[in-house]
Amino acid sequence: MNMRSLSSSSSSSPATVTKLALSIHSSFPTLNLNPIFFYKFKSNKHNKPPFFSIRNCTTSNSISAKPSSQLRKNRSSNSDSDPKLTALRRLFSKPDVSIDAYIIPSQDAHQSEFIAQSYARRKYISAFTGSNGTAVVTNDKAALWTDGRYFLQAEKQLNSNWILMRAGNPGVPTTSEWLNEVLAPGARVGIDPFLFTSDAAEELKHVISKKNHELVYLYNSNLVDEIWKEARPEPPNKPVRVHGLKYAGLDVASKLSSLRSELVQAGSSAIIVTALDEIAWLLNLRGSDIPHSPVVYAYLIVEIDGAKLFIDNSKVTEEVDDHLKKANIEIRPYNSIVSEIENLAARGSSLWLDTSSVNAAIVNAYKAACDRYYQNYESKHKTRSKGFDGSIANSDVPIAVHKSSPVSLAKAIKNETELKGMQECHLRDAAALAQFWDWLEKEITNDRILTEVEVSDKLLEFRSKQAGFLDTSFDTISGSGPNGAIIHYKPEPGSCSTVDANKLFLLDSGAQYVDGTTDITRTVHFGKPTTREKECFTRVLQGHIALDQAVFPEDTPGFVLDAFARSFLWKVGLDYRHGTGHGVGAALNVHEGPQGISYRYGNLTPLVNGMIVSNEPGYYEDHAFGIRIENLLYVRNVETPNRFGGIQYLGFEKLTYVPIQVCQWLSIALVRYIFC
Amino acid sequence: MNMRSLSSSSSSSPATVTKLALSIHSSFPTLNLNPIFFYKFKSNKHNKPPFFSIRNCTTSNSISAKPSSQLRKNRSSNSDSDPKLTALRRLFSKPDVSIDAYIIPSQDAHQSEFIAQSYARRKYISAFTGSNGTAVVTNDKAALWTDGRYFLQAEKQLNSNWILMRAGNPGVPTTSEWLNEVLAPGARVGIDPFLFTSDAAEELKHVISKKNHELVYLYNSNLVDEIWKEARPEPPNKPVRVHGLKYAGLDVASKLSSLRSELVQAGSSAIIVTALDEIAWLLNLRGSDIPHSPVVYAYLIVEIDGAKLFIDNSKVTEEVDDHLKKANIEIRPYNSIVSEIENLAARGSSLWLDTSSVNAAIVNAYKAACDRYYQNYESKHKTRSKGFDGSIANSDVPIAVHKSSPVSLAKAIKNETELKGMQECHLRDAAALAQFWDWLEKEITNDRILTEVEVSDKLLEFRSKQAGFLDTSFDTISGSGPNGAIIHYKPEPGSCSTVDANKLFLLDSGAQYVDGTTDITRTVHFGKPTTREKECFTRVLQGHIALDQAVFPEDTPGFVLDAFARSFLWKVGLDYRHGTGHGVGAALNVHEGPQGISYRYGNLTPLVNGMIVSNEPGYYEDHAFGIRIENLLYVRNVETPNRFGGIQYLGFEKLTYVPIQVCQWLSIALVRYIFC
Repeated sequence: MNMRSLSSSSSSSPATVTKLALSIHSSFPTLNLNPIFFYKFKSNKHNKPPFFSIRNCTTSNSISAKPSSQLRKNRSSNSDSDPKLTALRRLFSKPDVSIDAYIIPSQDAHQSEFIAQSYARRKYISAFTGSNGTAVVTNDKAALWTDGRYFLQAEKQLNSNWILMRAGNPGVPTTSEWLNEVLAPGARVGIDPFLFTSDAAEELKHVISKKNHELVYLYNSNLVDEIWKEARPEPPNKPVRVHGLKYAGLDVASKLSSLRSELVQAGSSAIIVTALDEIAWLLNLRGSDIPHSPVVYAYLIVEIDGAKLFIDNSKVTEEVDDHLKKANIEIRPYNSIVSEIENLAARGSSLWLDTSSVNAAIVNAYKAACDRYYQNYESKHKTRSKGFDGSIANSDVPIAVHKSSPVSLAKAIKNETELKGMQECHLRDAAALAQFWDWLEKEITNDRILTEVEVSDKLLEFRSKQAGFLDTSFDTISGSGPNGAIIHYKPEPGSCSTVDANKLFLLDSGAQYVDGTTDITRTVHFGKPTTREKECFTRVLQGHIALDQAVFPEDTPGFVLDAFARSFLWKVGLDYRHGTGHGVGAALNVHEGPQGISYRYGNLTPLVNGMIVSNEPGYYEDHAFGIRIENLLYVRNVETPNRFGGIQYLGFEKLTYVPIQVCQWLSIALVRYIFC
Repeated sequence: MNMRSLSSSSSSSPATVTKLALSIHSSFPTLNLNPIFFYKFKSNKHNKPPFFSIRNCTTSNSISAKPSSQLRKNRSSNSDSDPKLTALRRLFSKPDVSIDAYIIPSQDAHQSEFIAQSYARRKYISAFTGSNGTAVVTNDKAALWTDGRYFLQAEKQLNSNWILMRAGNPGVPTTSEWLNEVLAPGARVGIDPFLFTSDAAEELKHVISKKNHELVYLYNSNLVDEIWKEARPEPPNKPVRVHGLKYAGLDVASKLSSLRSELVQAGSSAIIVTALDEIAWLLNLRGSDIPHSPVVYAYLIVEIDGAKLFIDNSKVTEEVDDHLKKANIEIRPYNSIVSEIENLAARGSSLWLDTSSVNAAIVNAYKAACDRYYQNYESKHKTRSKGFDGSIANSDVPIAVHKSSPVSLAKAIKNETELKGMQECHLRDAAALAQFWDWLEKEITNDRILTEVEVSDKLLEFRSKQAGFLDTSFDTISGSGPNGAIIHYKPEPGSCSTVDANKLFLLDSGAQYVDGTTDITRTVHFGKPTTREKECFTRVLQGHIALDQAVFPEDTPGFVLDAFARSFLWKVGLDYRHGTGHGVGAALNVHEGPQGISYRYGNLTPLVNGMIVSNEPGYYEDHAFGIRIENLLYVRNVETPNRFGGIQYLGFEKLTYVPIQVCQWLSIALVRYIFC
């Protein structure tokens, strides 16, 4: 953006800048200014890679490092003993453990994108701090799998006892393939069943069974926690707060009532909700257990005539207690979830379980308790409790109903109050960003040397002055020049670059406010961009505008629109290796499903009036520059002059109020698109 | 099109017009002028509706007719006996038949889109002549299923003994659901297993098993043929011809060699090819057994060291006999296919079978013969012939390899000679069309009254004068005004409309030439189109151009591009209820897979350099007008200035040389698109 147009109001108070941002917002192309992320949709049934992932093997920051086998060899020669590994392996032989290998994933028990430090076991055991990684420890080996974004970082952080597994590189086995390779047949592979979804555990079990290995669920304790001891951070215990009706728009009773209708329709009498954002949304609660996500560690069971929230009682304030009582929700200890699941089966309750998100500990506990029920029932009634085809011969026996969580879709379709909150926080966010860009342009013009971290900190300073500000919604990506090409770049003090006036600067950031969540990327140049940079920027912006302006019939899945955002890049043989849009929660997780706009064609969730998506095409030139232009949009019904087929047509409205830098960039192609 | 631009050459000989068409071809938007169809991709694994089908319930020509139940009631009250039904039912009780119901589909034994009259059993038994329909006859009922295109026609053609089942309408059961409704449990449902794909028969078997009905394969004779007797047309017996190397580009030995490599890779020792166009392509043979499709009724078995063609010997000329001998292909009687399949199994040959296209008679015969082999083997060797997990414990036992036919994809990717033939025949076809449009414009200008059929016949006259002309590639759709809105319209002498100078005229036609196949739709107006017609035409053309100009990365399935062709219509709430593009054979079927460009997202076949697709967006306003603009394109590698990801980018080249009418239509939106 040309900052001069914004900096004309020199005493730019937040209010003034808000007005300015608002006034510019009406004419799209002259405006607008966003995070990057690498996350998994919890509802990802198709085993697809995350939104921002590697489309082809040649990645921005992949390097031609030595093959793992060679690295292994080099390292084993100068290996030191690792006290953590030694302590962990000592536990393998305990009588109630008795395993030959232990898998330590990155996840918490709720498949959260961001997790509390207390649950960062993989990071503790391996010292590797990247967001994605799986550690596997056998009696004589330790290996860590991560993806191309983290190869260099993992090489630095892992000590010589660890084998780095460069996932996705040719010839690199998966964790289960490796276990089949290195363990003698018939081994016992241990996992903490709370840290694997049921689907993932079943898949693992299936693959290792080929070598007759057994998957052992260690319910009683996490082995890493056992060796972590006092050094382990306390589980988060900050107070929970009520997300008021003025933000939520719909009271808990109404949400539970809708959910219960779905339970009845699905033939189940209870549902277990484990995704933290789903619980927060359903109960109009927010917390601060996890950085960037205003959620609280809990499980929820909703039955037809009641509900139980499993949560550390010390977090429950009097207000929250009243709020829950009003909705007839009982409070239970967080750790009593498994015994309550067993009680449900024992009482004959059929339970709705989304096996793609609910952890293996819960699914397995329910299944085992159902089996006990059937045995008991059969011995009492001398009849089969289930029909030969799996149908229920008797309706009062408990069965598992395996379906996607209905809360995920309900949460994704925002009500008017939620949308209003999103609009209002975006306005305040735009004010902070306008102040920030004004400040940055002045600093750069005055030849101030600023690091990527200093710039990111200053943005946080402006944002934190805005009403209702709570947190960043993810780690800010502040990348100058070549760093902009690293899709998941996180600048670190001491090692990061300075913002160079003669290079592109990409800033992807977002915030959590009491009334909403923001996510915006802007790419700017403070000098004179090259012809190449201009062409690439223009084509990214053309794609952004094409998606922004799209109109489409109801029942259209997001992937149908993905090509609109790429077509201008494709024309000259360019593309980007990440999706174009993800869902965003209302004062909740910055990344949510089930909808998305991506070149991965498995997600058939249609875009529905009230859903929020990001619109963030980009282009990344390795070792040179990165461009991404991201707004948040909400899906709205469009009044078209015709309604062919008697159906509704939909389009997008912008939530983002921040200008897009144009003057430095304007090219003929863009002018054609905008003015013709 | 503005015909004046073409008619300037008054003595327009084919050669002159060819040059003219060619000279105009270079500047796309000022030019260009194509059939419509309703067909099934044989490789349709996803049970999706055909290319041109009904997207939503409100169809162009669906009518709010009486519910079938009421119609049934009305009819049964004044029912006459139907001698065909009576004769058919008499066969039900024969000892070697013994069935309670018989299903008569539209298909021949090869799942051909068009079929020889000799195999039109459903048409014979029901008197309904539409292309899509299934008849089911029980001891006291007869019902016919067809889709919305044919409701009115079926009402007229079916006598009072028939119940019309309006497939797709709410509450209308499928054939198998209906059988479960009307038959007493445990009934025997007969089919001719040659007329059902194995997958379709298995699905049918599964559904009717819920009522304990048995699906009975009547191998020995088709019951309709038995009652048809002397009146049944002879099976086609015209001579087969060799499709010379100058058209085919690749000799049979090379094609068989590639196929055999695939057989080895798949672990099979033989493949059965049943699709007539696949056989014709593989053996460089053409025939005239079927209207519009230059194919011949035959089966083909290719083994590692030989091949057998099952064909009526009387069609095999000396030239063809020599041609086949050279490629080491034996000739066998058409009807001996099942016994040879059984021999294959008995010899221990593993057979590649595409169950989505190979008929149930063949698949079942192979399976039964394999079972006999296993029993024999086990009793001889006292061991299990197959491993517990389905793997082969012994490599010399026959197993079925269920995979898609490799011939379908090989055929779809045209070689340079085939593309040259397609270009050349398109040039001659364009000459005929230029003469035709010149003639038509003059006739209309002179106030001549011409029917849709007369116009269609005249086009055939011009085409038939072109070198190498053989046949039309489908029934010409010649629709004036509201008839243009009937996607599958077929004008009939006596009942069709006249071409009205004040209405839109849609002409979708194509031809078979010795060197290629054409398919083109043009929509024209000889007077002054309305503003509404102009807007719709412009938006259809914008979509056509957007697809024509698309560039996309390798591995892109056709459906990704479908939205490009619709987006301009979507903007104003318009759409069309058919796919945007289908594959076209080179001097073969006008509709072929496996690729397509459609809003049905199940077909993941990528578009590959050398494939041919149609580009035919449209818009249809019920009872008013229809617009469709269709060219044939071929996919080609594009030299882009960049190759992000190190991959190939692709685009399209036009095959069609006929101008698109523009002067009458030009609107601001189009000008924007073309000139900006």
